[in-house]
Amino acid sequence: MSGTGRLITLEGGEGSGKTTQIKLLGEFLKGRVEKVAVTREPGGSEGAEQIRALLVAGETGRWSPLCEALLHYAARRDHLDKTVLPALVQGAWVLCDRFADSTAAYQGYGHGLGLDVVARLHAIVLDSFQPDLTFILDLPPELGLGRTRGRAGAEDRYERMDIAFHRRLRDGFLDIARRAPQRCVVVDATADADAVQAELRAVLCLRYGFAA
Amino acid sequence: MSGTGRLITLEGGEGSGKTTQIKLLGEFLKGRVEKVAVTREPGGSEGAEQIRALLVAGETGRWSPLCEALLHYAARRDHLDKTVLPALVQGAWVLCDRFADSTAAYQGYGHGLGLDVVARLHAIVLDSFQPDLTFILDLPPELGLGRTRGRAGAEDRYERMDIAFHRRLRDGFLDIARRAPQRCVVVDATADADAVQAELRAVLCLRYGFAA
Repeated sequence: MSGTGRLITLEGGEGSGKTTQIKLLGEFLKGRVEKVAVTREPGGSEGAEQIRALLVAGETGRWSPLCEALLHYAARRDHLDKTVLPALVQGAWVLCDRFADSTAAYQGYGHGLGLDVVARLHAIVLDSFQPDLTFILDLPPELGLGRTRGRAGAEDRYERMDIAFHRRLRDGFLDIARRAPQRCVVVDATADADAVQAELRAVLCLRYGFAA
Repeated sequence: MSGTGRLITLEGGEGSGKTTQIKLLGEFLKGRVEKVAVTREPGGSEGAEQIRALLVAGETGRWSPLCEALLHYAARRDHLDKTVLPALVQGAWVLCDRFADSTAAYQGYGHGLGLDVVARLHAIVLDSFQPDLTFILDLPPELGLGRTRGRAGAEDRYERMDIAFHRRLRDGFLDIARRAPQRCVVVDATADADAVQAELRAVLCLRYGFAA
């Protein structure tokens, strides 16, 4: 089961449990594949982390949706060139917390920039590149935002956006999944972390032939 | 001669004298038009200046050409929305030190990203928006780089790129001028500052009917 790297992304709104799930998935894959790399967006490389700092903190209206999409794609290209592609070339299975679907959902749907603009930008920056598999952790935004309330830290710019934004975001992710049913698997993220992880692992076993 | 704002841009390689010329042009326009605004790229708005900090300092190979182009266009859209368009709406004549032609010249020609990629990005971010008039201050790169050598400051990332880059840049600007002869005026920037300024003012008088 090794030799060829794969890119597996986790997507979802605030508080959907991506960070916990990706850590557990990494543990599952170790021993089953030769190399595992865990990374995140925006960020995951030196330059992309510098761009991240401009995106995740500060006033909610700090950037227009189009500026945000450009910054996210600049960070993504840097992350891809410096971190993701080198790992894939070495045969690693790369688990990434957010990727291009987040730009489609957050800027395209949530901020109303439109899917077409994001798709044109994607074509310039990534051509037809997409992850091998994408898990979309779905839950009502009220529940997800409730989970994030206890968190410390200044990286809460998106969390502070209004509830209507978070509803468009959720609908956006579900629409993205409908448009790419081969690549995307929607998972009910209202369940507890162990149950969600069991579902993600079951999908990996089925797709890639791992022992459970 | 007032009521409608205009965007006039100055373009050229390192040490071509843009900053001096734009200051003198601003003085010339005051009294001849209702409002004058002087600005620069990358930068000219709070967000764009933050992006500028990522572009003008640090290692020359810090960003790929495509990342650079995305960052420049993100900064440009912010600058346009927050500074340039509001000034134009108020009838100001906006003098801008660098604009989209710099991305075409630096990333498109200089770094070999290609004009087509820059043009597609321009279409997404600015549609068909272009300055009313662009002065291209032309001089051999050896001469321009010699002029910048005495300058203090850490904003020298582009200056430190090799001479072949600066030659492609110059050829790029001249090619841009050939492709947009209505908008672009190439000026010999090897002359002294007063002579260059006299030529710029002569063009403004001819185009817009100002008294000399």
